[in-house]
Amino acid sequence: MSRGAAGDFCVNRDRPIGVFDSGIGGLTVAHALMSALPNERIVYFGDTARLPYGTKSSATVAGYAAQITDFLLKRDVKMLVVACNTMAAVALPIVTGLSPVPVVDVLDAGARAAAVSSRSGRIGVLATLTTVSSQAYERAIRAHAHHARVISQACPLFAPLVEEGWLDHPVTELTAREYLRPVLAEEVDTLVLGCTHYPLLKPLLARLAGPATRLVDSAETTAAQVADLLAARDLRRTAAEEPVHEYYVTDLPQRFRAVGALCLGRPLPEVQLVHW
Amino acid sequence: MSRGAAGDFCVNRDRPIGVFDSGIGGLTVAHALMSALPNERIVYFGDTARLPYGTKSSATVAGYAAQITDFLLKRDVKMLVVACNTMAAVALPIVTGLSPVPVVDVLDAGARAAAVSSRSGRIGVLATLTTVSSQAYERAIRAHAHHARVISQACPLFAPLVEEGWLDHPVTELTAREYLRPVLAEEVDTLVLGCTHYPLLKPLLARLAGPATRLVDSAETTAAQVADLLAARDLRRTAAEEPVHEYYVTDLPQRFRAVGALCLGRPLPEVQLVHW
Repeated sequence: MSRGAAGDFCVNRDRPIGVFDSGIGGLTVAHALMSALPNERIVYFGDTARLPYGTKSSATVAGYAAQITDFLLKRDVKMLVVACNTMAAVALPIVTGLSPVPVVDVLDAGARAAAVSSRSGRIGVLATLTTVSSQAYERAIRAHAHHARVISQACPLFAPLVEEGWLDHPVTELTAREYLRPVLAEEVDTLVLGCTHYPLLKPLLARLAGPATRLVDSAETTAAQVADLLAARDLRRTAAEEPVHEYYVTDLPQRFRAVGALCLGRPLPEVQLVHW
Repeated sequence: MSRGAAGDFCVNRDRPIGVFDSGIGGLTVAHALMSALPNERIVYFGDTARLPYGTKSSATVAGYAAQITDFLLKRDVKMLVVACNTMAAVALPIVTGLSPVPVVDVLDAGARAAAVSSRSGRIGVLATLTTVSSQAYERAIRAHAHHARVISQACPLFAPLVEEGWLDHPVTELTAREYLRPVLAEEVDTLVLGCTHYPLLKPLLARLAGPATRLVDSAETTAAQVADLLAARDLRRTAAEEPVHEYYVTDLPQRFRAVGALCLGRPLPEVQLVHW
């Protein structure tokens, strides 16, 4: 291999990974990536001005996803991670169609993990209205476990409750009991947390679902998929200096700093405002 | 007065009233306008793709408000009604600065009504995070009642609860009890419903607040202000045919039809999608 070619490869490998979400929930995925791949550099994009996506139409979400994909590709990313279940549910073909670099998404990661986890083949999915309406989880889970029975439940209040910081509040417990009732009645043994906000409710949901139900949080599964893909394509970052991550959002009200810190497990660092 | 001038006046009077909100909550205001002024024509704009505004920064909300104002002015409205407390709280100077036609807003209407209603001068305001942070209600109420004591409470879960249709649900009651506790502890005699979603929770809030507390719903007060202004400026519509209202939204997922019907008190009519 010529020196020039090696140099090119080196540059390729040192490019960042683009991670995006409608807001800050995707920071749970960024956090998992930083833990699993501490040498990788991340460019995070959260469309905080237009969130939430989970109550909006597929066409609108797809348009936004295309705009964000374009933004990240211009930042020369080597891989895209769709860290938003709603975008993964309704806009993945748009993203992969635009992207010359590999695309990993949280929905496929969650579906695979659920298919592997379930013994009974009865799988519950908690997600946004738009994700549930798309039936994308049913299709993705059945692609990996043909005879699975998937019970989906839209939980539109979970994201606002997380953003209110009521992670273990009686209101959240009562809401969760209401959403979980029809799902648990189907005796699922696996419950997919199909929105990147929901892992913050994991302790509460685990308590309500009981020890016999396994909760699938796609952040870690996604990080594992990214690690495998980087290794397979020889794209692991080789630079020795510590990676400096970048964060872009379309709006930054104060409240998001608090929720961002919860998602990231540390204070939200300096972020750059993008005016769209 | 020359015939030509009379003709011009006639055309002026028959122009529609532009009513706008971040979404569909403003339909509670449109509904009050239709009841108070059944001969007026309304052009309604709801920015359903980018809602909610109540958790976003002032700068972002102001930018959106300018875009909507421009849209409605191009539709030749004779008056603008800011039917969104958050926009009224942080973007009113932008709207009035752009508008050559009179502007009425729900926040000022609510503040006036509260100032008139309160005997003790202790007034509670329930609103979005952005509205509460702006302190616009405090300023507006004190402009009409100098010695008023205003106790504001952000209620970020109320709008999502209304959109979930949980108007009289145990979760909503528990949430309302939590939000009302510090406000009622101040022994307010008047409670402003400072977001156009909240009138849908009026029966529940009235029950929790008790008969001694008057609830101010700015929709009706706004309609009365519009009626006064139309009369004062000789701008009442004179055309004999029944007015045909127009509705524009930036996104229209199914769920909004249901909530829209609740706000409007009748099925949501045909709406036109604006792609921004």
